Amino acid sequence: DLVFDPSSHTHRRYNPLIDEYVLVSPHRNKRPWLGQTEPPQQVVLPEFDPACYLCPGNKRAGGQSNPRYTKTFVFENDFSALPSSPIPTAPSVDHPLLRAEPIHGSCDVVVFHPRHDVTLARMSLDGLLNVVEEWKRVYEYRSSKPGIKYVQIFENKGSMMGCSNPHPHSQVWSLSEIPSIAEKELRALTKYSLSEIAHSDSPRPPNGNPCLLCEYAHFEANTENGPRVVAKTNHWIALVPWWAVWPFEVLLLPYRRHICSISELTPEETACFAQILSEVTVRYDNLFSCSFAYSMGIHQSPISSKASGDIDTSIAHLHVHLLPPLLRSASVRKFLVGFELMAEPQRDLTPEQGAARLRECSSTHYLSSI
Amino acid sequence: DLVFDPSSHTHRRYNPLIDEYVLVSPHRNKRPWLGQTEPPQQVVLPEFDPACYLCPGNKRAGGQSNPRYTKTFVFENDFSALPSSPIPTAPSVDHPLLRAEPIHGSCDVVVFHPRHDVTLARMSLDGLLNVVEEWKRVYEYRSSKPGIKYVQIFENKGSMMGCSNPHPHSQVWSLSEIPSIAEKELRALTKYSLSEIAHSDSPRPPNGNPCLLCEYAHFEANTENGPRVVAKTNHWIALVPWWAVWPFEVLLLPYRRHICSISELTPEETACFAQILSEVTVRYDNLFSCSFAYSMGIHQSPISSKASGDIDTSIAHLHVHLLPPLLRSASVRKFLVGFELMAEPQRDLTPEQGAARLRECSSTHYLSSI
Ligand SMILES: O=P(O)(O)O[C@H]1O[C@H](CO)[C@@H](O)[C@H](O)[C@H]1O
Ligand SMILES: O=P(O)(O)O[C@H]1O[C@H](CO)[C@@H](O)[C@H](O)[C@H]1O
Repeated sequence: DLVFDPSSHTHRRYNPLIDEYVLVSPHRNKRPWLGQTEPPQQVVLPEFDPACYLCPGNKRAGGQSNPRYTKTFVFENDFSALPSSPIPTAPSVDHPLLRAEPIHGSCDVVVFHPRHDVTLARMSLDGLLNVVEEWKRVYEYRSSKPGIKYVQIFENKGSMMGCSNPHPHSQVWSLSEIPSIAEKELRALTKYSLSEIAHSDSPRPPNGNPCLLCEYAHFEANTENGPRVVAKTNHWIALVPWWAVWPFEVLLLPYRRHICSISELTPEETACFAQILSEVTVRYDNLFSCSFAYSMGIHQSPISSKASGDIDTSIAHLHVHLLPPLLRSASVRKFLVGFELMAEPQRDLTPEQGAARLRECSSTHYLSSI
Repeated sequence: DLVFDPSSHTHRRYNPLIDEYVLVSPHRNKRPWLGQTEPPQQVVLPEFDPACYLCPGNKRAGGQSNPRYTKTFVFENDFSALPSSPIPTAPSVDHPLLRAEPIHGSCDVVVFHPRHDVTLARMSLDGLLNVVEEWKRVYEYRSSKPGIKYVQIFENKGSMMGCSNPHPHSQVWSLSEIPSIAEKELRALTKYSLSEIAHSDSPRPPNGNPCLLCEYAHFEANTENGPRVVAKTNHWIALVPWWAVWPFEVLLLPYRRHICSISELTPEETACFAQILSEVTVRYDNLFSCSFAYSMGIHQSPISSKASGDIDTSIAHLHVHLLPPLLRSASVRKFLVGFELMAEPQRDLTPEQGAARLRECSSTHYLSSI
């Protein structure tokens, strides 16, 4: 009799965070690749680039000059995607199917380091701690602004991921509505918290209801030789989730207690966040000996006093998604295209295979740190 | 007083087909682009490429030789993502959050034309009609196979969209489950059909309930100077939908009656399908004078006798999505990355602006047809 073997048999996995499936076809990685390859990354960048609008002292598009900052640096994006004040008048509607809603907010840029040529992977733990502290400050500052319901922190790293300037930086888009994907996750967390099932001795939110991510993190952190674990610190775990879509997708989770947002992190939990960021980004670079591209995003609590009535914001469990496109080498990526855009995400190696590859990588960068 | 103007004010639009929003920031297209540009497409291809595994008479990876076909040509993919027979044993589960399900099906390749150097945009209406008829045959053939619940027809066009061979072809993945995105749409169509509201004198399914896409297509087709219409034939309309995400995204819809699948198309409706495909792909190429990349996918009825009990398959309304990445020129694309992957799709020109640009393009190809 044929026994189901997830490492060689095609199957579907369920993603309970967004109520979608992913198709896993492990054998597919063997096919020859004749398609587009990525241009080699510019490896040697200058420490300072006079043409870079993020380097200390340089001029930005809006005409302002950057300060001669020495750690992190925050400013409002000169080409913000969001207007700072609400548009008061409701749009006119031609048909009930054509719904538009005004939205406002702000777009900040958080520069990680004065040097043009570094990345998170090559920064010291102290440097990473500065970044996490800066994210905390921006999250809290933007949360206090009128009408803001959600603060989305994200980084596009590498030109492959649409980043137009290699100077290390992230973005913070604060919005007067909860964005679609965060909202979908919050709905799934709410549904799970109302379920009767509590499967483990895992941590729980103060209200005592089950939390999907508390349980999942606890389960993975306590499985012996956890097959999906990439790295673990005292408070945070890095894993390739059971339902990962991108080849080397990673989820960062605090696993010891229910934590709604970066604001709630203790100093030790904050230091572990910096440490796990280093552990993962270093392994990413080491995997194919290149500056590994990814999009990273922090999901956490909407702003509680203002969020729409039907979402209990304390349901949120802080977590970080890392979505990197490379599949086989520094120049061959996974294309999430036709079938993935029209039907369902599909992956060519199992999450466990992805995790094993990353786990085997050294946590010391193949180039020197800064 | 400030009046809401969707062509200059940032706003959010609702996509009722998948219950998600898109953020529209029309002014954002003005920012300078300093990021990655796409390599120029190889413009002049040979009519026959001895190294191409899709050209007539050549050998494929599996060792078989292609026939010397003269119109279309169908074969099973040598690196199928789906196994042909079900894996009988259910997977063992470590935790209820780790759900896996076996899945089976098949992957076919539908080659459009014997010539290596053509594309849909440069094919005659007769040639396009052959393609549509071939899709019909494959859809019907695969629907008749045991356990198949959904047949996903799609095309990845251009290396930018992960296509590894320029020889014009599409793929057909037939599955024993309804894929996530098709299922999400079917749920939205079901919800709409059960609503009390019927907004227009639009066509309806035989059961008399409202159909979201019948109504939407009817509304757009009957709006004077329809701002989102790209092209219209006697039975099909091409439009940039109100909720479009990709810069020049297009939706093709039959607008005169409720049609569940390509199998139900009359000869005249079939000819109009071929015609609208030509109208849109020619305008795409003319927009930036290049071979325009896109992913295309056909959404239609699941296979009725076998689909899961809770979906009424006659609710489906046949439609085709075209998702092209280019934004500003033949070499500058839109990256749907950080914010889009973590929070919500965001676009830099309004759907009406996109539609106007395409409408103004000639429906005669800037190069000759074949
Ligand atoms: O099947 P192809 O054309 O070799 O491959 C392409 O389409 C597939 C289906 O959308 C994707 O999974 C692959 O990542 C992409 O490269
Ligand atoms: O804001 P940037 O870095 O110029 O732009 C990048 O990130 C944005 C947010 O994910 C995307 O909308 C853009 O398409 C991408 O190029």
